[in-house]
Amino acid sequence: MEKENESKTEQQEQDQVEAFKVPLVIQLTDDEKCMWKNLSVEESKRLARENAKDIIACGFDISRTFIFSDFDYVGGAFYENMVKVAKCVTYNKVVGIFGFTGEDHIGKISFPPVQAVPSFPSSFPHLFSGKDKLRCLIPCAIDQDPYFRMTRDVAPRLGYNKPALIESLFFPALQGETGKMSASDANSAIYVTDSPKDIKNKVNRYAFSGGQDSVENHRKYGANLEVDIPFKYLSFFLEDDEELEHIRKEYGSGRMLTGEVKKKLIDVLTELVERHRAARAAVTDEMVDAFMAVRPLPNMFN
Amino acid sequence: MEKENESKTEQQEQDQVEAFKVPLVIQLTDDEKCMWKNLSVEESKRLARENAKDIIACGFDISRTFIFSDFDYVGGAFYENMVKVAKCVTYNKVVGIFGFTGEDHIGKISFPPVQAVPSFPSSFPHLFSGKDKLRCLIPCAIDQDPYFRMTRDVAPRLGYNKPALIESLFFPALQGETGKMSASDANSAIYVTDSPKDIKNKVNRYAFSGGQDSVENHRKYGANLEVDIPFKYLSFFLEDDEELEHIRKEYGSGRMLTGEVKKKLIDVLTELVERHRAARAAVTDEMVDAFMAVRPLPNMFN
Repeated sequence: MEKENESKTEQQEQDQVEAFKVPLVIQLTDDEKCMWKNLSVEESKRLARENAKDIIACGFDISRTFIFSDFDYVGGAFYENMVKVAKCVTYNKVVGIFGFTGEDHIGKISFPPVQAVPSFPSSFPHLFSGKDKLRCLIPCAIDQDPYFRMTRDVAPRLGYNKPALIESLFFPALQGETGKMSASDANSAIYVTDSPKDIKNKVNRYAFSGGQDSVENHRKYGANLEVDIPFKYLSFFLEDDEELEHIRKEYGSGRMLTGEVKKKLIDVLTELVERHRAARAAVTDEMVDAFMAVRPLPNMFN
Repeated sequence: MEKENESKTEQQEQDQVEAFKVPLVIQLTDDEKCMWKNLSVEESKRLARENAKDIIACGFDISRTFIFSDFDYVGGAFYENMVKVAKCVTYNKVVGIFGFTGEDHIGKISFPPVQAVPSFPSSFPHLFSGKDKLRCLIPCAIDQDPYFRMTRDVAPRLGYNKPALIESLFFPALQGETGKMSASDANSAIYVTDSPKDIKNKVNRYAFSGGQDSVENHRKYGANLEVDIPFKYLSFFLEDDEELEHIRKEYGSGRMLTGEVKKKLIDVLTELVERHRAARAAVTDEMVDAFMAVRPLPNMFN
C-alpha cells in the first residue's frame, strides 16, 4: 500500500513538472516576519530555513527552483529595484493600501517594495539576465493581493511588465468558514507536525460539522455541505474524485454520517502528514543550501 | 616652488596618518541621491564613483580606508541592521525629525536606517567581526545631524554603542554667509573642476567683500572680517598661520585692500585646485575598485 502511494506521488510530481516546466522563484520574507511578529533577525532567519525545508519536501525540482530569503538576498539589482519601486509610491498611497498609521514603524512602510520586486526578472540577474521582458506569474493567497496591486500599478512606470496573479482561497479554519486559522490557537488548524493522535483529536473535536443535530434529522435532511469542514477539507485533499463525489451524494443526502466522513478525513490527513513528515525528514541542510544558492538554473526553460 | 609644495603635502599626509591611524569607512549614499534628486540608478552609481575619485585624490590610505556605495553594499549584515533600526523608529518620529509629508515617496521614509547603520561595526563583518564594541566617530556637516540623533536614540535599544560626532560648519557661499552654496548656481561656489580663469572671475566678481565702499573709508575703518568671504576662505585654505594673521591685521585695519586679499585667495585656490586636479587625474578605475572592494583591512589598527 505504501509502495503504491509512493509511486503515485512520483507520478503526480512528474505530471506537475510536465505541466509547468518553468523557472520558479520562491521568496521567503524573513524580514517581514522579523518586523511584523517582532522576532529577532536570527530567529526569523532560522524559521525561513525551516519553511524552506517544508517547501522542498513538497517535491520541487531543484534544477528549476530558486528559493531565497530577503535577509540573504536583498542587495544589488534587487535593492536597485526596491529603490525604483519606492520612488513611485507615496506614504499616502501605502496608507491607502495597507492601512498603516503614524505609530507604525518605518520598517513596515519600507517593506512593500521588498515584496514587489521579485515580480521583475531584473531582480535576479543570475537567472534572467537579458530576459527583462519575461512575464511573472504569482500564485498567492488573496491577502497578498494589495502588494501586487501596488506592483502592477508601478510596473509600467519602470518600463517593466505587470505580474499576473493566481489567487488561492484561504483554507477554512477547523471551526468553520467564519473562523480564521490562527497561530495562537493550535486547534484552529492541522499542522504538518501534528501526530496521528493530534489529527484524530482535532478533527473529531473541532472540525465544524454540517450534519444535523440528531441521526433522525440527519437521515431526513442530510448534511449541509456548504458549511461542513470535513467535507471541505476532503475536497482539497482527497485525490480520488469519484470517491469525493460519492461522499457528496451519500453525506449530503443523509445516508452517510458525520463520523464516517471525519474518519475518512482523518485517514487522508494522517497519510498526507506522515508522507510530508517522511519527505521533510529527508531534506538536509545541504539541500536547503543548494536550493538557496545564488546560481543559474541552466535547464529552467527545457 | 611646486616641488616644495608637493613634499609639504606628503608631509601633511604623513602627519595625518600618524595622528589618526584608524580604520576609515566612507559611505557614498548613491541611493539617497537617486531618491532625492530624481536621478536614475545608473547615473547615481556613476556619480558615486566620481565622488570616490575626488575622495581618493585627497590622499586617503588604502590600507585603512573602505569606501562603499549603498547600491553596491546594502545587503547581508548591513540590511539586517537596517531592519533592526527601522523597527525602532515610527513614521511619526521620522516626520518629527525630517519633516516628511504624506506625499513624500516611501523611499525617503525608508532611507534614514541606511544612513544610520554604518555607525555600527556589525554592519561590516569583513572589517569588524568580533569587534562589536568598537566606537564610531562620524565627521559630518551639521545638516546630517538629524540622522545621527536618530541613530544615537536607537543604538542602546539594539545593544549597540552610540556613534560620536564631529560636526563641521558649512562653508559659506561666495555671496556671503547669508547665501547658500547651490548646485543650481555655479557662481555660489568654487568647484574643484574650475579652471584658473573661472576661479579668478568668481572670486573677483562674486566673493562678498567686507571692505568699505571707498578707499578713503577703507583706510579709515578697515575691512569687516566678520562678513568678508575672501578672508574667511583664506582662513580655511591658507596653510601659513602667520601670513593669515598678518592679513587679518593689515586688512582689518584698512592698510590692505580687498583686491590684494582676493589676489591672495585666487593664488591659494588655483594652486589647491590644480593640485587636486593632478591628484584626481592619477586616480584610476582600478584604484576606485580597490578602495571599494569588500575586503579586510589587515593593518587598520597598526
